[in-house]
Amino acid sequence: MIVAMQENATDEQIDGVIGAMEEAGVHVHRTTGTIQTILAGVGPTAGLDLAQFEVLPGVEHVHRISSPYKLAGRAWRPEGTVVEFANGVRIGGDQVHVMAGPCSVESRELLEETARRVKAAGGSFLRGGAFKPRSSPYAFQGLGIPGLQLMRQVADAHGLLTISEVMEIAQIEPMLPYVDCFQVGARNMQNFNLLRELGQTRKPVLLKRGMAATLEELLLSSEYILSGGNYNVILCERGIRTYETATRNTMDIAAIPVLKKLSHLPVVGDPSHGTGRRDMVAPMAKAAVAAGADAILVEVHPNADKAASDAAQTLYLEQFEKLMAELKVIAAAVGRTL
Amino acid sequence: MIVAMQENATDEQIDGVIGAMEEAGVHVHRTTGTIQTILAGVGPTAGLDLAQFEVLPGVEHVHRISSPYKLAGRAWRPEGTVVEFANGVRIGGDQVHVMAGPCSVESRELLEETARRVKAAGGSFLRGGAFKPRSSPYAFQGLGIPGLQLMRQVADAHGLLTISEVMEIAQIEPMLPYVDCFQVGARNMQNFNLLRELGQTRKPVLLKRGMAATLEELLLSSEYILSGGNYNVILCERGIRTYETATRNTMDIAAIPVLKKLSHLPVVGDPSHGTGRRDMVAPMAKAAVAAGADAILVEVHPNADKAASDAAQTLYLEQFEKLMAELKVIAAAVGRTL
Amino acid sequence: MIVAMQENATDEQIDGVIGAMEEAGVHVHRTTGTIQTILAGVGPTAGLDLAQFEVLPGVEHVHRISSPYKLAGRAWRPEGTVVEFANGVRIGGDQVHVMAGPCSVESRELLEETARRVKAAGGSFLRGGAFKPRSSPYAFQGLGIPGLQLMRQVADAHGLLTISEVMEIAQIEPMLPYVDCFQVGARNMQNFNLLRELGQTRKPVLLKRGMAATLEELLLSSEYILSGGNYNVILCERGIRTYETATRNTMDIAAIPVLKKLSHLPVVGDPSHGTGRRDMVAPMAKAAVAAGADAILVEVHPNADKAASDAAQTLYLEQFEKLMAELKVIAAAVGRTL
Amino acid sequence: MIVAMQENATDEQIDGVIGAMEEAGVHVHRTTGTIQTILAGVGPTAGLDLAQFEVLPGVEHVHRISSPYKLAGRAWRPEGTVVEFANGVRIGGDQVHVMAGPCSVESRELLEETARRVKAAGGSFLRGGAFKPRSSPYAFQGLGIPGLQLMRQVADAHGLLTISEVMEIAQIEPMLPYVDCFQVGARNMQNFNLLRELGQTRKPVLLKRGMAATLEELLLSSEYILSGGNYNVILCERGIRTYETATRNTMDIAAIPVLKKLSHLPVVGDPSHGTGRRDMVAPMAKAAVAAGADAILVEVHPNADKAASDAAQTLYLEQFEKLMAELKVIAAAVGRTL
Repeated sequence: MIVAMQENATDEQIDGVIGAMEEAGVHVHRTTGTIQTILAGVGPTAGLDLAQFEVLPGVEHVHRISSPYKLAGRAWRPEGTVVEFANGVRIGGDQVHVMAGPCSVESRELLEETARRVKAAGGSFLRGGAFKPRSSPYAFQGLGIPGLQLMRQVADAHGLLTISEVMEIAQIEPMLPYVDCFQVGARNMQNFNLLRELGQTRKPVLLKRGMAATLEELLLSSEYILSGGNYNVILCERGIRTYETATRNTMDIAAIPVLKKLSHLPVVGDPSHGTGRRDMVAPMAKAAVAAGADAILVEVHPNADKAASDAAQTLYLEQFEKLMAELKVIAAAVGRTL
Repeated sequence: MIVAMQENATDEQIDGVIGAMEEAGVHVHRTTGTIQTILAGVGPTAGLDLAQFEVLPGVEHVHRISSPYKLAGRAWRPEGTVVEFANGVRIGGDQVHVMAGPCSVESRELLEETARRVKAAGGSFLRGGAFKPRSSPYAFQGLGIPGLQLMRQVADAHGLLTISEVMEIAQIEPMLPYVDCFQVGARNMQNFNLLRELGQTRKPVLLKRGMAATLEELLLSSEYILSGGNYNVILCERGIRTYETATRNTMDIAAIPVLKKLSHLPVVGDPSHGTGRRDMVAPMAKAAVAAGADAILVEVHPNADKAASDAAQTLYLEQFEKLMAELKVIAAAVGRTL
Repeated sequence: MIVAMQENATDEQIDGVIGAMEEAGVHVHRTTGTIQTILAGVGPTAGLDLAQFEVLPGVEHVHRISSPYKLAGRAWRPEGTVVEFANGVRIGGDQVHVMAGPCSVESRELLEETARRVKAAGGSFLRGGAFKPRSSPYAFQGLGIPGLQLMRQVADAHGLLTISEVMEIAQIEPMLPYVDCFQVGARNMQNFNLLRELGQTRKPVLLKRGMAATLEELLLSSEYILSGGNYNVILCERGIRTYETATRNTMDIAAIPVLKKLSHLPVVGDPSHGTGRRDMVAPMAKAAVAAGADAILVEVHPNADKAASDAAQTLYLEQFEKLMAELKVIAAAVGRTL
Repeated sequence: MIVAMQENATDEQIDGVIGAMEEAGVHVHRTTGTIQTILAGVGPTAGLDLAQFEVLPGVEHVHRISSPYKLAGRAWRPEGTVVEFANGVRIGGDQVHVMAGPCSVESRELLEETARRVKAAGGSFLRGGAFKPRSSPYAFQGLGIPGLQLMRQVADAHGLLTISEVMEIAQIEPMLPYVDCFQVGARNMQNFNLLRELGQTRKPVLLKRGMAATLEELLLSSEYILSGGNYNVILCERGIRTYETATRNTMDIAAIPVLKKLSHLPVVGDPSHGTGRRDMVAPMAKAAVAAGADAILVEVHPNADKAASDAAQTLYLEQFEKLMAELKVIAAAVGRTL
């Protein structure tokens, strides 16, 4: 960390700041310039809230020099992480994968039809929610564990992996037999107790960026899982909230290459939540793959208009099949397969 | 709800939309204009995701006409809600109250000193966190239930009420004896399962606005608590995330009068999180009271520089005492007491 | 427009609103429901500030039904606009074009080298600024008209078109001989007098989205040019300001397909300003083409580190040549040439 | 400036960065730590785009240590600037002033009535626009210079000062006789040529914060006027664009005390644009004064519903008079007069 003192800071103020830094376990180098004094601090600053130094008398600015995350940083594993699944599917390798399915699991018939078509078109994962947090208490809230059992059976029958959202610590244990990958939703990106518990499992976790989270915060959140010893973490860009209302969220496509540079973890794009509009899913899925996404997470439903949740952003099966054909060409154009 | 069809929408498209609306239980009135057709839908639209109609062929825009929340709306209780506590303190009445204390409960000595001075200066609540979610896994994480027991004892000794953050359903029951008011943090504003459970208690809940939540979403979240029969809900503005970095968050002072107009629930301002800077707490606390806040939630610590968390935004006790004197004058200027 | 009255609106309030609408030249249809009254207004609402009705007593919400823009709307020219240049280059057709060059014109040598390599790699336009608005008054401010003369000569020598930013009405006339396309920067997107004057020329105008502008506002701004009779308008997405700081701006890739759907005008992506980081330009250029961009605007400089402005986001010539090769493959993957 | 090198940066990379810094005229101090190397740069960095160093090979982060603005900084004039007007009105002193009037000058009758009531209620300035930039080309565009002449006459008759928006360099000269204070609107905050020209006058300038501008950018823009020798600059907070739609803009009340701390310039609050809603103007005006605003800028019109522009946010005269009485009490509560 670097503390830049104000031009007119007194010696007493400077000593006060040095004392506070040392008390926090930081070793301090002082540079006295003609205009201002600069204090460089070295040591265990990752857990420090630097703002506490910023408000000390005489301080102009405090800058964090080293990344606040460690295990998630690219330097920790320069070759990149590949998350491997039982059936050999590898997220983060040369092949781009697709995770598709309805927002909510609703019935065996719909799920069967979805799984069959997703598999035939080249998808690897069946996605579907069993616990549905809805912003209105008057909306459909999900099938729960029976929904996951159904999903497991249907996915197995078609040779697909399963991914579903976990919302509470109490759901982790019961979900374990049914999911190949946990999904942590945007609203839970900073539910640190949940992340810590997921770090105790060895099951892959797809961690979605929060609606107003910076990429640094996303990486800090992943650190909670990684520091428990679970290195099977996949990051997901799903759009952030901005002032623009033409799309439900603003999908930050640049997050994909930036995360790939800052971190060794695989990165997935979710154009369904990223746009909230069925008609924008295909162009944004293509953009995500062109920008380097390792996988695409997309909502699809045999009767998309009548999906129990997220209907507006859910693809029809025909649209999905067309998209898969297009994504294959884009993947090839960036030197990958799908 | 109102569906505006595109100028060139076909009869088939219009019939399709009418069919979808009716299937959702909505009664439809059709107005065929010279330029475009407008469909007005009446019925149980509060739980509907209107975006599902927006993507139907031929639709230009869908507008929600009635508020998506009901119990939280001002019309439901035009006279306004007053949340009453055992010792007679009333939030939402003529008196403005102050809730003050450290971000985290750390030790009996610090808490004693804080409580004594808060009470003497005119505060009504002792605040303090026992479960501390931190964005870095390497930071201090709180004392847990023993911290709350300590807080209860100290508060009782000084005639103060207690408020502390609940982070999981499993914490509700154990916290009940120790807190007079639950606090739901910004990160949990859309933890709907937690809100639903809090709706089953009759203990007051202070619900903080999420970092990227609209006021409508805050009111929808309050609806989860209200619909369980717990009407003791207090809303809290604590700053939103914007591009501006001079303050940690941008405190949306206008949220206070807007919420007072839209809803009957009391509204509290939190200038500590709202600004993240000790030197901006006093002007923003005054602004909040001037704009109509029913209470102020503020972080204070006898040794603010060394607070275990949120040090940068925590007031020294002397600053707090000065602020209380100033707030009394502002409260009087808007026709209230403190 | 649709005015939804509050549930408890009085007849007097309803009549007041009807009167205000009629006074504004709007024809009103009244629908009296069991719960609330809805007023549908038909007529010249494009120039009305609907908020004036929203604050009338008894009004709950006012919704604009028809688009506030007309000439920019897709319906006005469903087949799409192709902007044609003297040498046969067409923006908005099957071919994706690239506009490249330094942020600022600095010297003949640098510009010659740039033009030669841009042309050889397949670029169509030489870009370069002569009037440089800088946020600090202490920074380089541009060469002016002599810079444009230089640009014209160099571009002609290499068979390239020229594009440069116009910042004031007084610059339009002197720039006419030197530029094939005016560029209006983000800061001038709502300089309506400038747009109106550009509408009086017949020279193509590339209109950049403002840093905090919605897509609707961008289209309204284009309307100022179109309504003067200049239909040669090209829209440009160049990133918006959000809370994320990992990139200088957040490039809203979805804006490209959304604009293509809402409007008939061609759309260009600017990954240099969109990210502000040289290392993110290539993935975002590819994403933009994958999402449907008609052209890419990119900063390139023979000695990018020492460019007089925007150095951080400027590509080296070798990076540019590599990008061009990659873009050709992506363009082919979406059925276009480059 | 401080350059933090990556942990694995090579000596060659470090030398490259040192070379680039020196070439930019910066004197470099190198600190080689056990983990990383830090380069402290001293010299004329105010005009440098630091991002150019951030993208050099081996660099992790670049931090600006000293403020990029100088003349606007508090240190330059610690006692604070008071802008004085001919009739003795002083903005930035103990007295809080009010600037009020219609958004657009429309007719003598309306302006007369407004001026009379504004003066009687204690206002100091008559505000009114003559050149009206509107986002739709189909809306009312202002009266021009004759409107300003009218305003001058009416203001003089009532002992008020005048303030009106200047939108182009060409308007400065003709406006000089009619206005006591130029207003630069949010859309022109970064129209640097206009600011530079205003710096050549000695007429006070009220500079509004741009819709997506940081406070640092606002201060940098003020520097353009100050560096021309015109020290009569007044800053204005008028709301920023966020995702919240309950108000037209989000008024950043904290900007007021933050600007007062960073700069010596007076700060004005504009609750009319800050909220866009007549019913929120009074609470936000009070909040602004409570937070330390030196003046309030507010829209008022004898027939607010029918104002030619900004009707929704314009106060009726009766509302204005009530607000003035309330503001007097708030001003007294923070130790000032009005």
